[in-house]
Amino acid sequence: MMTNIFTQFPIAALNAVEETFETLVDRPDVRIERIISSGQASPPGFWYCQPQSEWVIVLQGCAGLRFENESDVRELRVGDFVTIPAQCRHRVEWTDPNGPTVWLAVHYDMPESDKG
Amino acid sequence: MMTNIFTQFPIAALNAVEETFETLVDRPDVRIERIISSGQASPPGFWYCQPQSEWVIVLQGCAGLRFENESDVRELRVGDFVTIPAQCRHRVEWTDPNGPTVWLAVHYDMPESDKG
Repeated sequence: MMTNIFTQFPIAALNAVEETFETLVDRPDVRIERIISSGQASPPGFWYCQPQSEWVIVLQGCAGLRFENESDVRELRVGDFVTIPAQCRHRVEWTDPNGPTVWLAVHYDMPESDKG
Repeated sequence: MMTNIFTQFPIAALNAVEETFETLVDRPDVRIERIISSGQASPPGFWYCQPQSEWVIVLQGCAGLRFENESDVRELRVGDFVTIPAQCRHRVEWTDPNGPTVWLAVHYDMPESDKG
């Protein structure tokens, strides 16, 4: 069982094969997730558009986060956090090419239909 | 507006006067909070016993967390996280005396009566 956010990275993350998503808390009203990126970005033209709100913080590495309604990419460094409202289109422009970027995401305000 | 978890510490935290608690997200189903300790511990004989569950991670410094139903104090270092179930009695035995300890806490599973 993982008990430290900076350890026990999945093999796929260690080998930079793909981004990895691990759920740490999964409840009807909240989901806490560790995401590890290794230089990946969202595919060209892809936008996340989520039914729930997300509070996300970068705990290791760095990343560029773009919101469709903003002209500049937001650069996130260690400790930077941002709230992404539900239905707000956004994408990851880049993540640190030199090592893992560790994100902690809290998803909340689930739509009623998703509540258990 | 604070956008980095490691900056803009309140004066009381910087001067180690008291622990500080700042709410970053406040919704009916979830509350995300930054806590800064500066060597403080829970008062003798004091136990936290909360109606909601709490997922908490130490992001800077270190701390000793005691659960009433465990004999050993859990030592939390940077990146260590723990889930504290609702109504589980616990206390902070110690925090880093040499500098700020930064906690990120996510409170969830609010009792029905507290839901907005």
